[in-house]
Amino acid sequence: MRTLLAGGTGTPKLLAGAKAHRDPAELTVVGNTGDDIELGGLLVCPDLDTVLFHEGGVLDTDRWWGIDGDTHKTNTELHRLADAAGLDDGPQFLADEHQTAGRDLARWRRFSGIAEFMTIGDRDRAVHLTRTSLLDEGYSLTDTTAILADGFDVEVTLLPMSNDPVASLIHTESGLMHFQEYWVGHRGEVAVSDVEFRGADAAEPTDDVLAALDNPVVIGPSNPVTSIGPMLALDGVTAALHETEVVAVAPFIEDRVFSGPAAELMAATGREPSTQGVADAYPFVDAFVLDSDDGTELDRPVVRTDTEITTIADSRRVYGAIQEALTRV
Amino acid sequence: MRTLLAGGTGTPKLLAGAKAHRDPAELTVVGNTGDDIELGGLLVCPDLDTVLFHEGGVLDTDRWWGIDGDTHKTNTELHRLADAAGLDDGPQFLADEHQTAGRDLARWRRFSGIAEFMTIGDRDRAVHLTRTSLLDEGYSLTDTTAILADGFDVEVTLLPMSNDPVASLIHTESGLMHFQEYWVGHRGEVAVSDVEFRGADAAEPTDDVLAALDNPVVIGPSNPVTSIGPMLALDGVTAALHETEVVAVAPFIEDRVFSGPAAELMAATGREPSTQGVADAYPFVDAFVLDSDDGTELDRPVVRTDTEITTIADSRRVYGAIQEALTRV
Repeated sequence: MRTLLAGGTGTPKLLAGAKAHRDPAELTVVGNTGDDIELGGLLVCPDLDTVLFHEGGVLDTDRWWGIDGDTHKTNTELHRLADAAGLDDGPQFLADEHQTAGRDLARWRRFSGIAEFMTIGDRDRAVHLTRTSLLDEGYSLTDTTAILADGFDVEVTLLPMSNDPVASLIHTESGLMHFQEYWVGHRGEVAVSDVEFRGADAAEPTDDVLAALDNPVVIGPSNPVTSIGPMLALDGVTAALHETEVVAVAPFIEDRVFSGPAAELMAATGREPSTQGVADAYPFVDAFVLDSDDGTELDRPVVRTDTEITTIADSRRVYGAIQEALTRV
Repeated sequence: MRTLLAGGTGTPKLLAGAKAHRDPAELTVVGNTGDDIELGGLLVCPDLDTVLFHEGGVLDTDRWWGIDGDTHKTNTELHRLADAAGLDDGPQFLADEHQTAGRDLARWRRFSGIAEFMTIGDRDRAVHLTRTSLLDEGYSLTDTTAILADGFDVEVTLLPMSNDPVASLIHTESGLMHFQEYWVGHRGEVAVSDVEFRGADAAEPTDDVLAALDNPVVIGPSNPVTSIGPMLALDGVTAALHETEVVAVAPFIEDRVFSGPAAELMAATGREPSTQGVADAYPFVDAFVLDSDDGTELDRPVVRTDTEITTIADSRRVYGAIQEALTRV
């Protein structure tokens, strides 16, 4: 059994390789939910959905989000309608009093759906509608995710990190905003002063997640702050990681980041934006996989390979290095 | 100025004729909201939308609901997903404790969106998403409807009957169900024992509606029970109708109904399912337009014409009869 911690695209890109090395039934993926949002009343869980769609064989692997070949009829009409009615576009975070007025799970991540700022496809939207309805019927996010995984014939076990709300909020020069507003709305082009996981103090990892953390854990080349950080902020998670074997793939080559906002967010949270900074942020990691071009000297065992993952062969190679690193723990 | 009371398709079919006789800026349409539902978290207002789409020039006039040429990608995927995950289809009214847990406006009309039992098109869905978001931003249903009307270049004034929740609930041999479950889910094929407008005691017509009822009022060949009845159940509406000039088009030819569940619902609520029964239900109506084949003798002035409305010429003819009936008041 292996447990992978997944946020963004770093860990999902390892899944093809993981399945080449292990039976999918022996793989559990714990997904970050800190960057989930409620958009126009529908709960969107981007990190869970990347895994759901990848494992369901429908992921758009050009963008690593959404469903391959999906249409965008509703999104297009939302923009036409807002334009015709003179409504603002861009992310519209609901006012404070509305952030806590609806579904508990949507606390501090509730956006108006007017001129929907995230591009939700038409098939994709059916997933959010079904998820939202299951939650409204009283299912937990864990149960809801399992039902959706059935709907896409997913063989790995996919678990949300928590059934409680955690909202990744970014403090920026333009004010406080949700991660999706920062990343999708502003393309990460505003200066960040801090990152807050609102709700994390009261949120708990599920029992299923804690049980999965008894197995060896793999952390892919995900952004340590907003992809992995929300999981680490949950009570008991870092303690569990200290107890088990953990291998991580660095999302940097020394101080060069592969993709995404990891460098800016690490700098804003007092971390060195580099492989060394990742190692400092992950004291519970027992061994690292670094890129062959990465000369960083760490205080823990290191396996080096080409860590850029574009093809399935790349994914196999990197997962092979993870397997080797686990033998060095 | 003229005010039309609209529910179902009866009154909307008069609009083309009304605009041939009067400047659209002099027409106000008050829409029934008793059959609105919240479906998968989105507020759907079928009677408002029929007018919105008709006046926006996009109505599917084969079905008299939805947008002409719309696609159904999300609805199709909702059904695929439910089937693949082994979820029930058919209308799924949320449990009592959930009926009052969300948006106030959705009280007693909240359905799960799993395997969405109403066929919502992809462009159509953008309307419900925008409406729901405007409500979540704090706009009233009246303001929301005006904004959507702008988005479709609607020239008439379209008003929801109330900003408060009123749910048309049908007591049947198969238990209590919302009107949409009765009509769309069961195609009206369950025996009805009573009709209830839950929330109507506490709901108020808006000031805009009461002001519109100072003008001569036209009631189209709509179902008196569930299309017009919810408006009449609001405090002050029948009193206002008694004060002004009102002409109604009978939705029956003697005891034959044109379409819809009017006959069954009138019988279930103690009315004769006939033109006479409509006259009894509308004591505030000053003159009627009846079909040329309808020999019913009424105690109020009557203008007869062919009242079947299929073409725009039909609509003009019937509205012409309404104009004439208004001169007899």
